[in-house]
Amino acid sequence: MRMSEGVEWGLHCCSFLARLGEGETMAGRDLAEFFGLPPAYLLKNLRALARVGVLRTTSGPRGGYRLGRLAEEITLLDVVEAIEGREHAYHCAEIRQRGPTGLDRSEYPEPCGVAVAMWRAEQAWRDSLSSTTIADLAELGHREVPREQWVKSKEWLGLVRARRA
Amino acid sequence: MRMSEGVEWGLHCCSFLARLGEGETMAGRDLAEFFGLPPAYLLKNLRALARVGVLRTTSGPRGGYRLGRLAEEITLLDVVEAIEGREHAYHCAEIRQRGPTGLDRSEYPEPCGVAVAMWRAEQAWRDSLSSTTIADLAELGHREVPREQWVKSKEWLGLVRARRA
Repeated sequence: MRMSEGVEWGLHCCSFLARLGEGETMAGRDLAEFFGLPPAYLLKNLRALARVGVLRTTSGPRGGYRLGRLAEEITLLDVVEAIEGREHAYHCAEIRQRGPTGLDRSEYPEPCGVAVAMWRAEQAWRDSLSSTTIADLAELGHREVPREQWVKSKEWLGLVRARRA
Repeated sequence: MRMSEGVEWGLHCCSFLARLGEGETMAGRDLAEFFGLPPAYLLKNLRALARVGVLRTTSGPRGGYRLGRLAEEITLLDVVEAIEGREHAYHCAEIRQRGPTGLDRSEYPEPCGVAVAMWRAEQAWRDSLSSTTIADLAELGHREVPREQWVKSKEWLGLVRARRA
């Protein structure tokens, strides 16, 4: 069971967009350049984030992406679900109802206990993802990134802003 | 992100095997019949469970599968990891090190904070899966399965035992 790489991309892009000034946007191709990612595939993921309101997009020559709401109000779960969907990872095919001893499905009013236990674990995962926000990641990034990279990234951001001015 | 159906199969088979008497085994094809599953594909999953000791297998005409240890000592996590592997669902490709501002990898002694947060959530999922055992599922199954199916399954088990005697 493996998450798509789009989740890593989405989380880092959101964390980067949290650094922008109010109303400022960033083109998808610039985000792709910053993280060394394939632009077309990154755009697909950014669009998925925009569809659920995690990102907002504006068109035009200075258009691009920005966070759709405050970084404090976007959780890791929001990003994961936008990219991976909201379906359970564990799918219950109700095999308890099959085979020579299975009864009519109306005899099983309650969900299967195996599924309930599996979904309880998924809920624990979701709860943990909900407890961290993009603001937390951005703050963490600021502290964690080597000072030299932080300086370089500010210079790079200046160049990108000049290019778009 | 979706788990393979083998997880559902493995959990139900283990729960069923918990009903057997000490030393008793059940053939893979009988388990497949009971749950209406494709025998060859089920066997692949049963073998994966045997490889990690969740199941024990004996050969010969009366051979088959039984639990590799007490049902109280096998957790849902044991079954999930046997089928799905032990790798993280979130894979960190260290994209923070890429692009025009990235530095040499030696400048990043600590794991990426985004990955740490994602793995923390996976640990919460694992902890929840570890808190339920096959004995819990078997007990739950006993209570949950409609009484009529429970009776039918005892009859079916009697037929299978007679066939193997």
